[in-house]
Amino acid sequence: MQYFELLQGDAQSPRRGQWHTQRGTVQTPAFMPVATRALMRGPWHHQLRPMGTEMLLTNAFHLFTRPGLETVQALGGVHGMTGWDGPILTDSGGFQAFSLSKMTRPTDKGFEIDHPVHGGKISWTPQLAFEVQAAFQPDVAMLLDVCPAEPLVEKTCDDAVRTTLHWAKEQRALHEARGGAGSGQAQFCIVQGGVFPALREECAKGLVALDFDGYAVGGVSVGEGFHAMMAGVENSTGHLPLKKIRYLMGVGTPRDLVEAVARGIDLFDCVWPTRAGRFGTALTQHGRLHLLNAQFADDTSPIDPECSCDACQSGIPRGTLRAGFKAKELLPGMMLAQHNLHFIQNLMQEIRNSIEAGTFHTMKEQILLAYGADGAG
Amino acid sequence: MQYFELLQGDAQSPRRGQWHTQRGTVQTPAFMPVATRALMRGPWHHQLRPMGTEMLLTNAFHLFTRPGLETVQALGGVHGMTGWDGPILTDSGGFQAFSLSKMTRPTDKGFEIDHPVHGGKISWTPQLAFEVQAAFQPDVAMLLDVCPAEPLVEKTCDDAVRTTLHWAKEQRALHEARGGAGSGQAQFCIVQGGVFPALREECAKGLVALDFDGYAVGGVSVGEGFHAMMAGVENSTGHLPLKKIRYLMGVGTPRDLVEAVARGIDLFDCVWPTRAGRFGTALTQHGRLHLLNAQFADDTSPIDPECSCDACQSGIPRGTLRAGFKAKELLPGMMLAQHNLHFIQNLMQEIRNSIEAGTFHTMKEQILLAYGADGAG
Repeated sequence: MQYFELLQGDAQSPRRGQWHTQRGTVQTPAFMPVATRALMRGPWHHQLRPMGTEMLLTNAFHLFTRPGLETVQALGGVHGMTGWDGPILTDSGGFQAFSLSKMTRPTDKGFEIDHPVHGGKISWTPQLAFEVQAAFQPDVAMLLDVCPAEPLVEKTCDDAVRTTLHWAKEQRALHEARGGAGSGQAQFCIVQGGVFPALREECAKGLVALDFDGYAVGGVSVGEGFHAMMAGVENSTGHLPLKKIRYLMGVGTPRDLVEAVARGIDLFDCVWPTRAGRFGTALTQHGRLHLLNAQFADDTSPIDPECSCDACQSGIPRGTLRAGFKAKELLPGMMLAQHNLHFIQNLMQEIRNSIEAGTFHTMKEQILLAYGADGAG
Repeated sequence: MQYFELLQGDAQSPRRGQWHTQRGTVQTPAFMPVATRALMRGPWHHQLRPMGTEMLLTNAFHLFTRPGLETVQALGGVHGMTGWDGPILTDSGGFQAFSLSKMTRPTDKGFEIDHPVHGGKISWTPQLAFEVQAAFQPDVAMLLDVCPAEPLVEKTCDDAVRTTLHWAKEQRALHEARGGAGSGQAQFCIVQGGVFPALREECAKGLVALDFDGYAVGGVSVGEGFHAMMAGVENSTGHLPLKKIRYLMGVGTPRDLVEAVARGIDLFDCVWPTRAGRFGTALTQHGRLHLLNAQFADDTSPIDPECSCDACQSGIPRGTLRAGFKAKELLPGMMLAQHNLHFIQNLMQEIRNSIEAGTFHTMKEQILLAYGADGAG
């Protein structure tokens, strides 16, 4: 039996809460590192908990394509595969149907997706997404939804909302038939509606009527721009139950995190911090560093002199990492990915502390000073 | 002032010793992990010491090409670049002149090597190799030698020995002019001679006459085969001073390590353990595992259930690593590289323990049982 406990805050303000699961409690606002194929890309898994990670995300669709349903089950589901004994959320593949759009065709019943490994077709339906996640045994399963390919086109978003609501009803029924909360698995829905307030409202209200365990805001950070994204968040959170957890999918720059927390979001995931690290960008309290820049060639400082992570404590200076990036060495990208995730988890801790202390606004302004109030994030 | 202390053993038997340096003592027989460009390829640097590493190798020629002499100096030499506060040995580029043979032309004075980074030519001479290593400040500098392109062709090996001896005299004089042992840097020479006993003997004796701090056996593990390699070792160590350290360059399979220790070698380096790991091979007490094999798809065991390394303690099963290798994920290769190095360092500890206990022969037979007395190593 999993549930959210709102400790502080209201519907559209910074909130402190706890997501209680059979595998431990997650302090919110929280950030979930992304182990798409049950493996992080950069940090070692034993580095996740010391940096403050309490919940992990992995991707049901990707694991379904490789190593496949039976193998994931044989390996003990997503917990067995990752070696992570805390809570895990699986994404349903709705976003992959969007991001792999060249390989995807919508059908009456779901998506037909070209199999990225074996060739052939996968008929990825709400029922299959549900059943695969039931078999993979995450603590939280996401609904299969429709992330509109064109978030600025009303007709596309309207269609996506209609299908998302239709599938939500279908998957909620499957969940109830499996025992609901008693199954050990929580079920989160996803609010779509693009940049259109009325569609966001309609989608949110339709989902709330089905009474999910958690509510995600989806279809954001897909190229619509910062202001449209935050409007999408506001237009969603305003219609969600006060006391249920809200999860903003795929968001994870320092600026976006504090801005979304300010609007009432409790949970995040994003590959950006680790990906940016693998390409040479380091996050610090004073903003980003692009370690490939020539200015770092002779720099004997650690990545971030104020940081206690394994990479910053290694004694390896920025200059070595820059030369390593240039020579396509493996370690610099792994080290920066780990550092950036450490930075983000540290930021989440500061967010939680500052909400409790009533100093969130000041803390947010400092982040915006370093990461641009309206810049690239 | 650095020196070798022979604790146990003689010229051509398993030896226990200590290499004393201003940055700590290295228990021998010892294995040096290879940080070619000041960065390991797999393990994080903070993982090296806990697994038993006491000395690191890095490559003066590669660092000279990138990031370059001035940058390496600005970053604090090889210790500053690697963050490693124990002893470091730098290779001179003699082996690179061999392995990059398509880019290399021998000249009267050294090698002309195509610059692998900037284009143009590098005139890599004994004097430059000496000066670059003096500037990079390793604890041990290797001589520039000639690793014969054809170790089975007597004329080629004879020429290589002649040039190696000529250059050795030149570099020993440069070392003495710089203060010799008082410079803080030890100087190791390299015995060449291919598969020809008389050439090995001549080269060894010529080098011993110049009285180096350590003696490497070079030009091995270059395709000459196991028996020829071990003959090359025997034909070298038989002519080296009992009380000086002997270093077998580029050797590091379990079989080759125990066989070379049996013939009186004290020090090793090799990229093989980490490279094999990055390509999916794991070392265990019971032999190699090729994790890409289908038999491991559903395997819930850690890489090596008997191992205490970070990878084996991660809770990530073999099946996840296999699927990750198939999907070109980064972490499986890094984890196996780290595990393999941990295995090798553990093997070195067992070698040292068994020499002390008088049980080396039994221990060696166990390794040969698992890794093939005459197989692929």
